[in-house]
Amino acid sequence: MIVHQVFFWLHQPEKDLNAVLEGCKAIAQAVSVKSYAIGKPAATEKREVIDDSYDIALMVNFESIEDHDQYQVDPIHLKFIKDHKEKWASVKIYDFEV
Amino acid sequence: MIVHQVFFWLHQPEKDLNAVLEGCKAIAQAVSVKSYAIGKPAATEKREVIDDSYDIALMVNFESIEDHDQYQVDPIHLKFIKDHKEKWASVKIYDFEV
Repeated sequence: MIVHQVFFWLHQPEKDLNAVLEGCKAIAQAVSVKSYAIGKPAATEKREVIDDSYDIALMVNFESIEDHDQYQVDPIHLKFIKDHKEKWASVKIYDFEV
Repeated sequence: MIVHQVFFWLHQPEKDLNAVLEGCKAIAQAVSVKSYAIGKPAATEKREVIDDSYDIALMVNFESIEDHDQYQVDPIHLKFIKDHKEKWASVKIYDFEV
């Protein structure tokens, strides 16, 4: 399985968080998505090794690299980027195979 | 659910990768762990937003913050840290609630 783990930092989370969260939910309809989860920083104890500075964690799971690649060009994914890309200041992605 | 997403960068991955991977597998036996997955960087297309510089991705899922906190002091987790901490150069953690 390929885990596509995305973290978003928004310019104005107080204004845009819900809109981007709704956009993340729409992504699940992309045909090659196996499963997904949307998260926000948890209230675990603060430690130096923890990065809790992001606003949204989006985890999207795929059966294969090919399914991941199909997702990258899926109209639903492209619409998400088009609709919301101006709202995020930065994004960091970790793709790992389990 | 609490996702405890850990990335490890090893000093000598060519020497120590398998030992740390085996240590990660042992973690699943900690009583408060709901589920877990161990990964390595996937061969997705390189992009500026992707960090694929780590050696191991360890995702551990808990039902609650309390279960996460119990894990932090579980003897199995403490043994993992004791046995392997000299092998990693750095670790980064994202805890998020889904």
